[in-house]
Amino acid sequence: MSSGDVSTFLDELERACEPGLLLREAGDLAEYGRDWTRVFAPAPCAIALPRSTEEVRRIVQLCAAARVAIVPSGGRTGLAAGAVARNGELVLSLARMRRMDPVDMLGSTVRVQAGAVTEAVHRHCAPHGLTWPVDFASKGSSQVGGNIATNAGGVKVIRYGLTRQWVLGLQVVLADGTVTELNGALEKNNTGVDLRQLFIGSEGTLGVITEATLKLARVPGALDVMLFAVPDVAGVLRLFREARRAPFDIMAYEFFTHTCLLRVQKHRKLRSPFEKESGCYVLLELEARDRDPLEAWVASLFESGTVTDGTMAQSANQAAELWSLRESISESLSATGLPHKNDVALPVARLEAFCSELDAVFSGRYPGWEIALFGHIGDGNLHINVMKPEAMGRDEFFTKTGEADHALFELVRAHAGSISAEHGIGLLKKKYLGYSRTPEQITLMRAIKRAIDPGNVFNPGKVVDAEP
Amino acid sequence: MSSGDVSTFLDELERACEPGLLLREAGDLAEYGRDWTRVFAPAPCAIALPRSTEEVRRIVQLCAAARVAIVPSGGRTGLAAGAVARNGELVLSLARMRRMDPVDMLGSTVRVQAGAVTEAVHRHCAPHGLTWPVDFASKGSSQVGGNIATNAGGVKVIRYGLTRQWVLGLQVVLADGTVTELNGALEKNNTGVDLRQLFIGSEGTLGVITEATLKLARVPGALDVMLFAVPDVAGVLRLFREARRAPFDIMAYEFFTHTCLLRVQKHRKLRSPFEKESGCYVLLELEARDRDPLEAWVASLFESGTVTDGTMAQSANQAAELWSLRESISESLSATGLPHKNDVALPVARLEAFCSELDAVFSGRYPGWEIALFGHIGDGNLHINVMKPEAMGRDEFFTKTGEADHALFELVRAHAGSISAEHGIGLLKKKYLGYSRTPEQITLMRAIKRAIDPGNVFNPGKVVDAEP
Repeated sequence: MSSGDVSTFLDELERACEPGLLLREAGDLAEYGRDWTRVFAPAPCAIALPRSTEEVRRIVQLCAAARVAIVPSGGRTGLAAGAVARNGELVLSLARMRRMDPVDMLGSTVRVQAGAVTEAVHRHCAPHGLTWPVDFASKGSSQVGGNIATNAGGVKVIRYGLTRQWVLGLQVVLADGTVTELNGALEKNNTGVDLRQLFIGSEGTLGVITEATLKLARVPGALDVMLFAVPDVAGVLRLFREARRAPFDIMAYEFFTHTCLLRVQKHRKLRSPFEKESGCYVLLELEARDRDPLEAWVASLFESGTVTDGTMAQSANQAAELWSLRESISESLSATGLPHKNDVALPVARLEAFCSELDAVFSGRYPGWEIALFGHIGDGNLHINVMKPEAMGRDEFFTKTGEADHALFELVRAHAGSISAEHGIGLLKKKYLGYSRTPEQITLMRAIKRAIDPGNVFNPGKVVDAEP
Repeated sequence: MSSGDVSTFLDELERACEPGLLLREAGDLAEYGRDWTRVFAPAPCAIALPRSTEEVRRIVQLCAAARVAIVPSGGRTGLAAGAVARNGELVLSLARMRRMDPVDMLGSTVRVQAGAVTEAVHRHCAPHGLTWPVDFASKGSSQVGGNIATNAGGVKVIRYGLTRQWVLGLQVVLADGTVTELNGALEKNNTGVDLRQLFIGSEGTLGVITEATLKLARVPGALDVMLFAVPDVAGVLRLFREARRAPFDIMAYEFFTHTCLLRVQKHRKLRSPFEKESGCYVLLELEARDRDPLEAWVASLFESGTVTDGTMAQSANQAAELWSLRESISESLSATGLPHKNDVALPVARLEAFCSELDAVFSGRYPGWEIALFGHIGDGNLHINVMKPEAMGRDEFFTKTGEADHALFELVRAHAGSISAEHGIGLLKKKYLGYSRTPEQITLMRAIKRAIDPGNVFNPGKVVDAEP
């Protein structure tokens, strides 16, 4: 399409909707055209900010007819460039669609528009003793539609599972302009293949999620938050084995290495609660029924040498301080250096073998480099951050990490793991998809893409290409 | 295919596998060719009982090449005729494939073959304090593969969700003979559309599930089981509202009408724990943290008149007796009369309005007939059983109930419900699918069927036809 044609098309789009639909300034194009990755240059043709499902429907129909690609866009806190528009696509932002209906107390559900911000949903439900248990550091700007389209993970997955488990119904706009309601507010509905599941985690490639009925959980009772010091990753897993058997519900089991702690201390000026440094730290959040067995369990950890140090928060403030050590890591790494990020998952039972082989890969590929390891290890999820050495140029760094990723992902494949636990594939991991999916599976994924979006309107080129 | 050709094909099949693959006797064809429904006459060409995934693969390849349809078959406890073979299909039974690997304690998972019986899995995991929380009356004969292919529900859904939530990985044999491993033992794996979700609830129409990695839950602590008497369905829902707010975790919230109780008393000679009869009864199972708040809550139900009578089991035996009142209903109805079954779901918030309108539909359609209502009402799931009047012929009965189903399903649609909460669509509900799915959704379902099973090898004619 020539730039004149694009301009004519955008004018037509504006006439079809309420005034003020589009943003066309360079600053807006740059901002809405990218996510939290900074790898690809944004270049959308415009930003559409519809106010209703009906406007979304019209936009989709006009784009499909004119063969203008659409990038659905939420809070753009993604880390896989799934929401990046770099080829003249129209960014369709749900940011204005953030209505939240009253909480349904009997059904424990709430209906919201896709643009509702995650944390706003939490605040909306909290007075009723309920919560949508999708929780992570970017909840202040991530949106419900984006959480669903990426099947977001986070810090409570070990207790609540992924976003997928907390979505009852979806309203979706399909490529032909059909507005369809998938499952509504039903807990049980075995009427053929569950189409809703396709859109959860589809990264915007199949349609636009415009509304959702969310399943809510009861706000848990009083939680205990503890931080333990252990010598190494094997120690992290040893402690996990003990926690699995212990008489309480694990709400979060997170770990980080000393490297992460140093970066957090540098950036956020936070203090370690421990006098001595240790190889790894574990943040354990739990809901205990009774105090005595819990205290006996903690005492046994010291006696057996499972942990070398530990502290239990005595107040909500102290709990928040311990959590901030963990939750500041990602931000601190980016603020104090240039990290190359990976987000892999392994079967929990393979973690120990994987981590010991990982050391060998890294010592060969990154001799002496700083590697910051942290993550939701109770779910088998490791965030691997390789920091750029001061003396190395950016290009050389990314070349070397790009090469090393192949060795890393070979190891992930050998242990039946995933190259993207929660971040998704987007553009950033697309060329590595074959490490986690077989050729036959990729063929099926393409067939499903073509079956649902035959014109390749939605987020073309993300995850997989529609044609080989 | 002529009968001679079929015979030649079956001989070829036997040569491709270990001896003893096929059953071809009339009695076996009748038994393996149907499920717990007794509506359609079974007429498979043979029964294949493979011993390994490799044999399944060979069978699928040969059937696809010869254009012989396959009906995948588990414990055949289904109630929608999804496993019925009535058109000369080959029944592929997983009954011999029931290996269970050791429980993975660290990952809280177990890998089993699809033919493992549900209750055998429970027994396998129990010594480790773990369970696969898929639980229903037919667990003694239902198989894991069938549970997954039907996304089975049951009596613990309010606490644990449907089978879908407890499946980590699937091994599936596709129509071209590909054996593919979907997700393995990963809790988190956001690498494009989650193909595993398509096979869960597919009713055997997309492929053969041969193995699964099951997610396990901790066996809950001591449970309290109570039975309450309330005047009517509105009373059932009033009590549910109170239970939702109460200080405990609901494990099951089941109800049944007095009609059901009478049939259970007649068939099983069980005693009601109550002296006076009541319109409805509620079985509540819960896991309480503390005794005092629970007892205060129960007392408040009597004070407020929310319940008119109630009893709390004082032992495991008494708990089992209360449960048997609920779990014997389905069997007692079939043993003492001829029920026409429906299994609908409504948004919980719509149940009260739905039930009051249901009375009007039934009093017009079934004047004076016996209607037995029970179900997992905490999930919005109602089992509606209309009993054949003694004086009426079987054909007239099914004609009348078939007509009335349209009025029932209109009401279900008006309240955004599902015509099949947990039983599935199979053959039995196929012609009613349009009450719960839009034409656009059915078109998508067909497109997915064609994308994954282009030759229509698997369970043709079930749920939807591959072509309109």
